[in-house]
Amino acid sequence: MTDTMARQIVLASRPEGAVRPENFRLEEVATPVCPPGGLLLRTLFLSLDPYMRGRMDDRKSYATPVAIGGVMEGESVAEVIGSEHPDHAVGDLVLARTGWRTHAPSDGTGLRKLDPALAPLSTRLGVLGMPGFTAYAGLKVIGRPKPGETVVVAAASGPVGSLVGQLARLAGVRAVGIAGGPDKCRYVIEELGFDAAVDHRDPDMRTRLAEACPDGIDIYFENVGGAVWQTVLPLFNRFARVPVCGLIAQYDGAWHGTPDDLQATMRAVLTRSLTLRGFINYEFDAEHFPSFLDTVAPGVADGSIRYREDVTEGLENAPSAFVGMLTGRNFGKVLVRVAPDAVGAAKS
Amino acid sequence: MTDTMARQIVLASRPEGAVRPENFRLEEVATPVCPPGGLLLRTLFLSLDPYMRGRMDDRKSYATPVAIGGVMEGESVAEVIGSEHPDHAVGDLVLARTGWRTHAPSDGTGLRKLDPALAPLSTRLGVLGMPGFTAYAGLKVIGRPKPGETVVVAAASGPVGSLVGQLARLAGVRAVGIAGGPDKCRYVIEELGFDAAVDHRDPDMRTRLAEACPDGIDIYFENVGGAVWQTVLPLFNRFARVPVCGLIAQYDGAWHGTPDDLQATMRAVLTRSLTLRGFINYEFDAEHFPSFLDTVAPGVADGSIRYREDVTEGLENAPSAFVGMLTGRNFGKVLVRVAPDAVGAAKS
Repeated sequence: MTDTMARQIVLASRPEGAVRPENFRLEEVATPVCPPGGLLLRTLFLSLDPYMRGRMDDRKSYATPVAIGGVMEGESVAEVIGSEHPDHAVGDLVLARTGWRTHAPSDGTGLRKLDPALAPLSTRLGVLGMPGFTAYAGLKVIGRPKPGETVVVAAASGPVGSLVGQLARLAGVRAVGIAGGPDKCRYVIEELGFDAAVDHRDPDMRTRLAEACPDGIDIYFENVGGAVWQTVLPLFNRFARVPVCGLIAQYDGAWHGTPDDLQATMRAVLTRSLTLRGFINYEFDAEHFPSFLDTVAPGVADGSIRYREDVTEGLENAPSAFVGMLTGRNFGKVLVRVAPDAVGAAKS
Repeated sequence: MTDTMARQIVLASRPEGAVRPENFRLEEVATPVCPPGGLLLRTLFLSLDPYMRGRMDDRKSYATPVAIGGVMEGESVAEVIGSEHPDHAVGDLVLARTGWRTHAPSDGTGLRKLDPALAPLSTRLGVLGMPGFTAYAGLKVIGRPKPGETVVVAAASGPVGSLVGQLARLAGVRAVGIAGGPDKCRYVIEELGFDAAVDHRDPDMRTRLAEACPDGIDIYFENVGGAVWQTVLPLFNRFARVPVCGLIAQYDGAWHGTPDDLQATMRAVLTRSLTLRGFINYEFDAEHFPSFLDTVAPGVADGSIRYREDVTEGLENAPSAFVGMLTGRNFGKVLVRVAPDAVGAAKS
């Protein structure tokens, strides 16, 4: 591939139930030209995130769906390879919503210039990017942890959960992670420093979680939904807070409960004075992003805040990496190295 | 009946499904004596409230259940008829948790002395009491209405809902009430001044509610649960707030949804950044009760804040009045005049 030709992945069909690689199509197209007064970007790292599952369905959400035949949306670290824009020079590195493609034109809107000296570039899509900020803002603004409390988070080895637990520990809070399989559970305790980890594949998960939370749950950081919610529900203390940032277990519509689940949840909300609060990270951007970087970046730089990346090589492999992420086969933040010569993925 | 004999209503059996009058038993007992250092109270008005349904079940809630054979709990306006207590004299009028009985001993804990000049005594159990304060605190602390927004409340002719709507209007908010039947809907609009009312018995309720909320719903004051929640859910705007103070439609366990209801609710919480917050009025007592009385009492006194009472005569009729309330047969705050010579029930 040269820069005369570009590649992109489009939505070929809407998923019926679970996403399959056939829902995507790889296309080779002429490289876009730099628009007048704008920029041409070359994608280095593409971020794959659970929210993208929602964009594949044709139903009301906080964002419009991707059209059939449209390029899949996504955030990336990109290099400016053409510029008629006064704020950006060729060679600049930026955070951009290029989508799943090797090259993208831009009018400059929404670009965030990156300082490669701050941390490895790839971290701006993970621990120092949207997922990390989701953890930070959800915990700080909605969770409001107090020393001695207990926080539970699922997908605890993932980019949101891993930071939720580490920030909770820094706030003097007991951190309990839920993860899939012994390797991830070991990582959550030994590398991330959580107080306890519970394997959601354990048939006795309900008992294990209760044992891991002897004083109940004060904050449950909801990013999975489905069966885990049912397990967490009986353990809530009065005045518990539930930041809701994702429901990955439900996105396929494959999870079904019982006709009394909503009753049980509403009853718990009432009798235990729970707070449930859905949020999208960017609602807190203006007020909290600077303090997030100030808080977390030094820890990433000095190694006291840990993270893990799961890097797939080549844009053509993005669909299978995405399907793997939705089924929990990834281990750490899922990234695609789109430009084969891109450096700057951190080692974990 | 003389003051040598007292009457009380005890829990005869736990309800299976809907409450029936047979779940209660009227007993005649010797009038309690004034305890050393304490007081003897004579109940004037007994308040009947939906939360009492929860006390009849033997399951975990925010309060312990009433024992089989135990006197039903409840709040009342009572007269001090015996006192060895330094703070209370015979003839004082107090707010007390006497329970469903004509006479009750007290050690003085939790009594609130009433000024009969402030407003009719009965209002201290309704618009100026626990239900009114529930409306005030839920709307102010959790609902946080902003001018131009839309609030929806069910049981709109009841003691909580009627004040929610009137306070919302005072805050410049569109108030939409849900009530059962044309009489209550007419009252909600014509007497209480709501902008619109929707009859929950209307087969086209979903359409009617959408028409009544052309700009969506910003605050839903949840006091019923069940089918109404399902109707409200699609209309929520982003960042809508949901104070949850009761779920009367679900207390019997007779309401059942579908296996996907919880998913749909959680999805709405996530995609529309909703806040659900359960609360019990007394958690806000210390901070907000004085401002509540300062705000609402003058309006009650000058007639600008309207309310309605549904008074049943005689303790022996409390069970049927209670059953009627749970099925929506009441019209206004449900009270029982326990002492036949009690005055001070307001006219509506």
